Amino acid sequence: MTIPAEIDTPEIIIDRDVLQRNIDRMATAVEAKGLHLRPHVKTHKVPEIAEMQLAAGAVGLTVATLGEAEVFAEHGAKDIFIAYPLWVGPRQAERLRRLAAKARIAVGLDSREAAETMAASLGDAVGEIEVVLEIDSGHHRSGIAPDVAVDVAHAAARAGLRVTGIFTFPGHSYAPGMPLKAMDEERLALGEAAGMLTAAGFPITHRSGGSTPTATLTAGNSGATEVRPGVYVFGDAQQLELGRCAAEDIALTIAATVVSRHEGTDLIPRRVILDSGSKILGGDRPGWATGFGRLLDFPDARITALSEHHATVVWPEEAMLPALGDRLRVVPNHVCIAMNLVDDVTVVSGGSIVDRWHVAARGRNK
Amino acid sequence: MTIPAEIDTPEIIIDRDVLQRNIDRMATAVEAKGLHLRPHVKTHKVPEIAEMQLAAGAVGLTVATLGEAEVFAEHGAKDIFIAYPLWVGPRQAERLRRLAAKARIAVGLDSREAAETMAASLGDAVGEIEVVLEIDSGHHRSGIAPDVAVDVAHAAARAGLRVTGIFTFPGHSYAPGMPLKAMDEERLALGEAAGMLTAAGFPITHRSGGSTPTATLTAGNSGATEVRPGVYVFGDAQQLELGRCAAEDIALTIAATVVSRHEGTDLIPRRVILDSGSKILGGDRPGWATGFGRLLDFPDARITALSEHHATVVWPEEAMLPALGDRLRVVPNHVCIAMNLVDDVTVVSGGSIVDRWHVAARGRNK
Repeated sequence: MTIPAEIDTPEIIIDRDVLQRNIDRMATAVEAKGLHLRPHVKTHKVPEIAEMQLAAGAVGLTVATLGEAEVFAEHGAKDIFIAYPLWVGPRQAERLRRLAAKARIAVGLDSREAAETMAASLGDAVGEIEVVLEIDSGHHRSGIAPDVAVDVAHAAARAGLRVTGIFTFPGHSYAPGMPLKAMDEERLALGEAAGMLTAAGFPITHRSGGSTPTATLTAGNSGATEVRPGVYVFGDAQQLELGRCAAEDIALTIAATVVSRHEGTDLIPRRVILDSGSKILGGDRPGWATGFGRLLDFPDARITALSEHHATVVWPEEAMLPALGDRLRVVPNHVCIAMNLVDDVTVVSGGSIVDRWHVAARGRNK
Repeated sequence: MTIPAEIDTPEIIIDRDVLQRNIDRMATAVEAKGLHLRPHVKTHKVPEIAEMQLAAGAVGLTVATLGEAEVFAEHGAKDIFIAYPLWVGPRQAERLRRLAAKARIAVGLDSREAAETMAASLGDAVGEIEVVLEIDSGHHRSGIAPDVAVDVAHAAARAGLRVTGIFTFPGHSYAPGMPLKAMDEERLALGEAAGMLTAAGFPITHRSGGSTPTATLTAGNSGATEVRPGVYVFGDAQQLELGRCAAEDIALTIAATVVSRHEGTDLIPRRVILDSGSKILGGDRPGWATGFGRLLDFPDARITALSEHHATVVWPEEAMLPALGDRLRVVPNHVCIAMNLVDDVTVVSGGSIVDRWHVAARGRNK
């Protein structure tokens, strides 16, 4: 695809056709496994994309913050899971009450203290909010062990909260060789927690799991009844390098211009500098990644350094350096971060601009 | 400082007293070296802070993009240097013309092609824009060698542009042991370029350099007549760990809440999870950093992992873990990135909220 001439760089471009294909493919794959799909919309933060996901059969949305829940509820979402162990004081409780008037709202929980504080803050509204216990399946971020989950469930029930399920995030699946192992650990943790909770009088029929690397694995089932992938809508350089998506599945690129060009010497690398720095690509770089993103049309080029407004791209010896002023398509390492850096994105179809979407939930960190 | 109760987390808090002290100290240090100060406002993107810098004696502002220049010109800045090798097509030229009606505008340049394209796009307005040649002093990002600079100066002059100086960014100063070496290389590069350009008929009296790590070094002079530090206004965890600022110089912190707490086991780290993830701290982590930021009041705690809305903080064995719901102050690794993630910041003085500033140039990537 040539970057449309109307676009100034750096700019995020979304290919609507590839996006639709990704949404449909995940919906079909998840349905074929007999699971529900509750996509994580922190990836895109765009109500138009959430509508496409719901139209393709998603049962509801996953968000990370109250602010994201508010944006999507305002745009008509009726079933929202805040997959985060919120600390709910009086101001957060008031926001939850207003949300619950618009949509079914479930909130993550991983401690007795958070349950008691949330219940006290909610007061009369305590029964309007569902809580879903977070289980640690090996990522060791938030989340608790299955036996602790039973104690937290009792505390939540005593405080008047409705415990309606369990969830886990197998974040350790984002590394080479890890998706299958992470899925195994997810199955064990969800199975053990569901068993112990059911035995303790909390019949758990709702088990939420899954990430983009694991959601479409056909080799097995993770023990979940629902999955929450996010990145699959766009793909990104991490998923590409993990082999979890192909170049033709990349729906989001950043249009960038060559602003500086250097043939290099024995001591100084042969490189071009693009105007897409970390303030649009995001600075994420896991140790196993080949660089700070990829060039979609030049798979052998490497983004070796990133400053706020410069991407340093070292070019393969045998290939001609692009010219000054050339415009290239860059794939960010982590699309969720890139989307959070812009207010609007350009939407193309068949190589032409067809729309402009507002990133309505950008920056809603709380 | 206790985090004011009115603040919901995560939230950026700026201590106005520390900020003013940092601004004054840099102004005094730079003046004592006989240099001009042209602070880089991409760090903060806030017109109120630029006013404080100008009031303390800054000769003008440095920005990275046309969009940033537009925001600060709109707020009254009269002398702006876009320290970036802009690629100026017709739309960028029109914006430069409008800017030049409001302020003195200088633009970075490092190639013949960019000079010719810029001049052609500017048309009649070619004489209204100053160009400043970017010299590579060892960072190997954009910028050219002194002998190439002479060729580019000739091309720019032929095209009708006014060459008024040289600049360099010693970005390799942001590493342990590097500030003095980077300053030496800056002096050599600026001196050689100024000499060759003057001999070629371009008398160079304006030489711009300096970064926060090098600007206040008293051990020597970098050969510059002007410095462009940015981060010094706030300080950050990188500068703290490089020994370029002290804990009491940190003017910007992120208020965060403990949302998850784990005593740990032999296999699972003892940790708390804060609600300040990479979507407010930024994901920058140089290899030499101890983590993804620091806790201002707990210097031995380590932020070992960061996801979008979670910071994993491993706590020292001998110290008690903070309680769930506790609010802590986090220092981001790189303040320029953190400021670019929020729309507004809370301003405190003497522990009380005194103002709220809009991050007016946030997201102005082009």
